[in-house]
Amino acid sequence: MRTVDLIQRKRNGEELSPEEIRWLVEAYTRGEIPDYQMASFLMAVYFQNMTDHEVGAMVEAMIESGERVDLSSIPGPKIDKHSTGGVGDKTSLIAAPLAAAAGVKVPMVSGRALGHTGGTLDKLESIPGLRTNLTMDEFRDVLSRVGFAVIGQSESVTPADGKLYALRDSTATVESTALIAASIMSKKLAMGLDGLVLDVKVGSGAFMKRQVDARRLAQMMVTIGRRNDLRVQALITDMNQPLGRAIGNAMEIMEASQTLLNSGPEDLTRLSLELAARMIFLGRVTETLDDARLMAQNLLLEQAGYRKLKEMVAAQGGDPQVLDRFELLPNAPMAYEIYSPRAGYVAAIDAEEIGRASAMLGAGRDRKEDTVDPAVGVLLEAKVGARVDEGDLLCRIHYSDEQRLEEAVERIEDAFRISTTEPEARELILEVVG
Amino acid sequence: MRTVDLIQRKRNGEELSPEEIRWLVEAYTRGEIPDYQMASFLMAVYFQNMTDHEVGAMVEAMIESGERVDLSSIPGPKIDKHSTGGVGDKTSLIAAPLAAAAGVKVPMVSGRALGHTGGTLDKLESIPGLRTNLTMDEFRDVLSRVGFAVIGQSESVTPADGKLYALRDSTATVESTALIAASIMSKKLAMGLDGLVLDVKVGSGAFMKRQVDARRLAQMMVTIGRRNDLRVQALITDMNQPLGRAIGNAMEIMEASQTLLNSGPEDLTRLSLELAARMIFLGRVTETLDDARLMAQNLLLEQAGYRKLKEMVAAQGGDPQVLDRFELLPNAPMAYEIYSPRAGYVAAIDAEEIGRASAMLGAGRDRKEDTVDPAVGVLLEAKVGARVDEGDLLCRIHYSDEQRLEEAVERIEDAFRISTTEPEARELILEVVG
Repeated sequence: MRTVDLIQRKRNGEELSPEEIRWLVEAYTRGEIPDYQMASFLMAVYFQNMTDHEVGAMVEAMIESGERVDLSSIPGPKIDKHSTGGVGDKTSLIAAPLAAAAGVKVPMVSGRALGHTGGTLDKLESIPGLRTNLTMDEFRDVLSRVGFAVIGQSESVTPADGKLYALRDSTATVESTALIAASIMSKKLAMGLDGLVLDVKVGSGAFMKRQVDARRLAQMMVTIGRRNDLRVQALITDMNQPLGRAIGNAMEIMEASQTLLNSGPEDLTRLSLELAARMIFLGRVTETLDDARLMAQNLLLEQAGYRKLKEMVAAQGGDPQVLDRFELLPNAPMAYEIYSPRAGYVAAIDAEEIGRASAMLGAGRDRKEDTVDPAVGVLLEAKVGARVDEGDLLCRIHYSDEQRLEEAVERIEDAFRISTTEPEARELILEVVG
Repeated sequence: MRTVDLIQRKRNGEELSPEEIRWLVEAYTRGEIPDYQMASFLMAVYFQNMTDHEVGAMVEAMIESGERVDLSSIPGPKIDKHSTGGVGDKTSLIAAPLAAAAGVKVPMVSGRALGHTGGTLDKLESIPGLRTNLTMDEFRDVLSRVGFAVIGQSESVTPADGKLYALRDSTATVESTALIAASIMSKKLAMGLDGLVLDVKVGSGAFMKRQVDARRLAQMMVTIGRRNDLRVQALITDMNQPLGRAIGNAMEIMEASQTLLNSGPEDLTRLSLELAARMIFLGRVTETLDDARLMAQNLLLEQAGYRKLKEMVAAQGGDPQVLDRFELLPNAPMAYEIYSPRAGYVAAIDAEEIGRASAMLGAGRDRKEDTVDPAVGVLLEAKVGARVDEGDLLCRIHYSDEQRLEEAVERIEDAFRISTTEPEARELILEVVG
């Protein structure tokens, strides 16, 4: 098999056989195919996409490249929740504790902030003492005792994905439906889950800008899951404006905490409850989805998810007090306020621009090696649809470095669109797939 | 400037600025951009193409990456001829000596066989003693004395092209109009030519399978030439069946010799004369193209091109006697004949299949490192349009390795299509651009 022939056939829009796809992934992981050939293959995939069969073979090869995690000794349904990445998206920190409180086990493998999107690991690590680099035994222990544990991707699980992702990141081949689906699903399948709730973001702050692409990604992942006996449901949700009000690591921990105390923003609360309900339903704790919704709602009112998150924080070495006493979390030394230049309605808050501004302040990273500043971020004081007068506060920027402020302010000012007419209400949950 | 951003913008179909393109080529040549990023950029270019401005900037950067050859001390117009690559295409060895006999100086930089296409350097090197690795001083000397000299690409001229071509070859990004145009024109412009006649091949045996693509390539090269004060004309010519009857290195030297003695195949003779005429015309030896055609025709009848080729062979260290006494050239020890399975007309002879079969026999190479067998090849005894009876000879395969024969025979048998109806006559010279 000549690598260049396989690249050429993919480039020409042909379907490769499962054996050919597997060989590519295996030989690349072993270092027998150089990065430059894989890079051109990935770009060809970006343009020509892959069939379900090809993605299936890729997922299989990526799983086989490493260890499978065995969680069968831990009783209860193992259900994870995964978002394709957004701005201000802290639903994992709300839905997972609620589901765990309902008796579901949530073995969550999370990622870090990249580009304009945030990452659950960075958010959690803003809690003093909290570790996400648990050993597999520690992870199993927390999961077993608390019902909810979070770690980063292990190098021994799907190492092929790790290697491919790093290459995609530096070759502008991240935004491929097939490659995103293969990357997510290989990691999830290697964890030995029973079910998975996917939150596929669509809009300016998401990888997928168009709903038709988000739907394809969702369908692809649901299909892969089904073929591997994994129960999967995908929500397609709006990411044109940031979710909730807080964007920034420690600030998002605070907002998650408030939301679990039922005093969070309406959009964030609603989406988190729906995700929790679907986790509970896929875990077969209830017979119907409506029963699961009722259960999630009750657990929220009882603050059971809030207590579960505290338990998890403590179990992973963090200080659980931070969830009550926000002054124990990193707080930025300076704040800058942005006011509405005129009266009208907030017609749009470009999520990508807000995400980029927040990353500029230090909350995110351009490159994997960068470190993040847990304290900085943006707090929205008005969301889309709000009526504002000239001079009303639109948002607060929490920053620690004067030099990084100016460009961030510009971006944030550009992100807000104030219009004289009231914008049409947008749906938050656009579609369900699976 | 972040490389990944430039890749992404090209991927998204945006035009990069001349500065950005130049920076990419320069940084890659200096080794500051890794192969894997350039590979994904090249695949993005394959799909999104480049504008004339982008190609222009790329050509400039590629020229600036090395030395410019100065031929100004040699009197006379410097005109080269370049083919985009075909099967059985030995026109360089006929047109260039004819043009040189007319007083044009032909400083020819040639390539080697690759894939199913042949290369002038390999053909010439089948002549015992002939060297193509001349020093620049030797090259100038032969050019000055004989009027026609051939060398391979020097590493000091357009090194960026050398590095990019090697990468394209292993990443399935050779067949890009923009990249082909940039590669050819940077090399030609660095030679300090006055004029260039391009033979853009189209059809099964060419890189360009469709005339519309060949036309775009021709237009792109003509535009680049014009912008750099180079007189350029491009012919678009048919490469659906091999040109002439001989495919294989030494066998093509014999056929070129016969053609220069005016006893060659009609198609090869006609195209070579037209190319020679345009070289003469671009060299301003005559005032009109028709005068140039007449001159080329007369030089052929006078055997002036034949004598010029002999001079060039001798000047480059080869044995000029081989052009009369073919037994002095490498001859394959064995021959295998293929007969028509039925009566009818030869409707098609797939040039790519014949080229691949010939390469399999040892006449070509899959990889740059492979060596070629100068003796082997295919001799067509019937061309498209010929009336054949069952059992008539279609072609002879000259081979030296029994093990390589079988697959080649299959391919060649498949390449011939015998039909009961006479095929429509095809034009050889399809179009002129410039």
